[in-house]
Amino acid sequence: MTNIKLEQKVLSRNDIIAKEVRELFRIRSIAVFNMVSSPGSGKTSLLEVTLEELSKDLSIAVIEGDIQTQNDAKRIAKTGVPVHQINTGGACHLEALMIKDALENFDLDSTDLMVIENVGNLVCPSAFDLGEGARVVLISVTEGDDKPLKYPAMFHTSDVLVINKMDLLPYTDFSVKQVIQNARSLKPDIHIIKTSCRTGDGLEDWMGWVRDFVSNSKSV
Amino acid sequence: MTNIKLEQKVLSRNDIIAKEVRELFRIRSIAVFNMVSSPGSGKTSLLEVTLEELSKDLSIAVIEGDIQTQNDAKRIAKTGVPVHQINTGGACHLEALMIKDALENFDLDSTDLMVIENVGNLVCPSAFDLGEGARVVLISVTEGDDKPLKYPAMFHTSDVLVINKMDLLPYTDFSVKQVIQNARSLKPDIHIIKTSCRTGDGLEDWMGWVRDFVSNSKSV
Repeated sequence: MTNIKLEQKVLSRNDIIAKEVRELFRIRSIAVFNMVSSPGSGKTSLLEVTLEELSKDLSIAVIEGDIQTQNDAKRIAKTGVPVHQINTGGACHLEALMIKDALENFDLDSTDLMVIENVGNLVCPSAFDLGEGARVVLISVTEGDDKPLKYPAMFHTSDVLVINKMDLLPYTDFSVKQVIQNARSLKPDIHIIKTSCRTGDGLEDWMGWVRDFVSNSKSV
Repeated sequence: MTNIKLEQKVLSRNDIIAKEVRELFRIRSIAVFNMVSSPGSGKTSLLEVTLEELSKDLSIAVIEGDIQTQNDAKRIAKTGVPVHQINTGGACHLEALMIKDALENFDLDSTDLMVIENVGNLVCPSAFDLGEGARVVLISVTEGDDKPLKYPAMFHTSDVLVINKMDLLPYTDFSVKQVIQNARSLKPDIHIIKTSCRTGDGLEDWMGWVRDFVSNSKSV
């Protein structure tokens, strides 16, 4: 009982800070999305190709969340985009306070888009609002089409579902139709994009979504 | 600070119950392993083929852990092996008390091997001893060879690493040598087995490990 009460307290404290962070982004017209998935679904790879293309005409910044290592920040830094790595120690998710503290590492006045890559975990990050404008959940086709039903909170709270590693589809028994049906049973209006970072298929759709998201955030 | 103290209290309470559960298995000479991995690494598929083969001459029981759905229990039930599904609600891991409570669903006196399939999560289950004799972590080759370094607690606390979906290796840039090196930097004596449930490669090694594990548990 104490445990539940404390969890509610931690969550509501997070919500207060997330609101503050969201307002901070809003007044600067910065578009922000939060990428979530299982470990190894391809968040960093998708981000790398996105930055290579879109940083030509957008000013982008990245916050990387991992339990340990600077690996992902090093990969992102190679694209020339400003990046800050948060190591959570043992914690299984990012929290709004970590984002708030990380912001001092960036020149926010010249930032169009902030991307947050969360810790690879299909459970815990779903409960923590980071002040983002959109939540993007990735699933790779090797993970199985039942995953939305087994991890419902993540799909219920996401705005976009990226079905990634589509190049591996012929070697699996994953049904794209089934995963879409499962995801829509939890979030009827979830926007769906199919990608392969290896072949480049679908990246145009994805980049289009990101560009529209940035434009819409500016015009609000 | 209160949060940390409470977490320690929950963990130490779990350790007390885990010790009790371990003793309960020991006096009945039941071998128990706990399967952990990211969502979609293939725990249930590996378990299905294992049960089909080994239930011919071993008495096996299965506890399935998932946030929601009875999907995995239904798959396991088709093999004819007794199975009990634990739905954790929102919780991201199994705890020793859930195992203790689940045991009333089985005829323990005639059980040689109990398999626990944990919630798909490479973070949180690492901190919760379930009274198992061995922890088996799966990684599929599509997840990337850096995963041990990014999720160190899970690999540090595991006895066996199963590198699964080896049939997909030619379509990825996953290095088996690198993942082994990364896992051994955290757990030098971790036992490594490479499998593909699709082609059957490596399943003999895996079944061999399970048989040895059951024999060793009986002789203690």
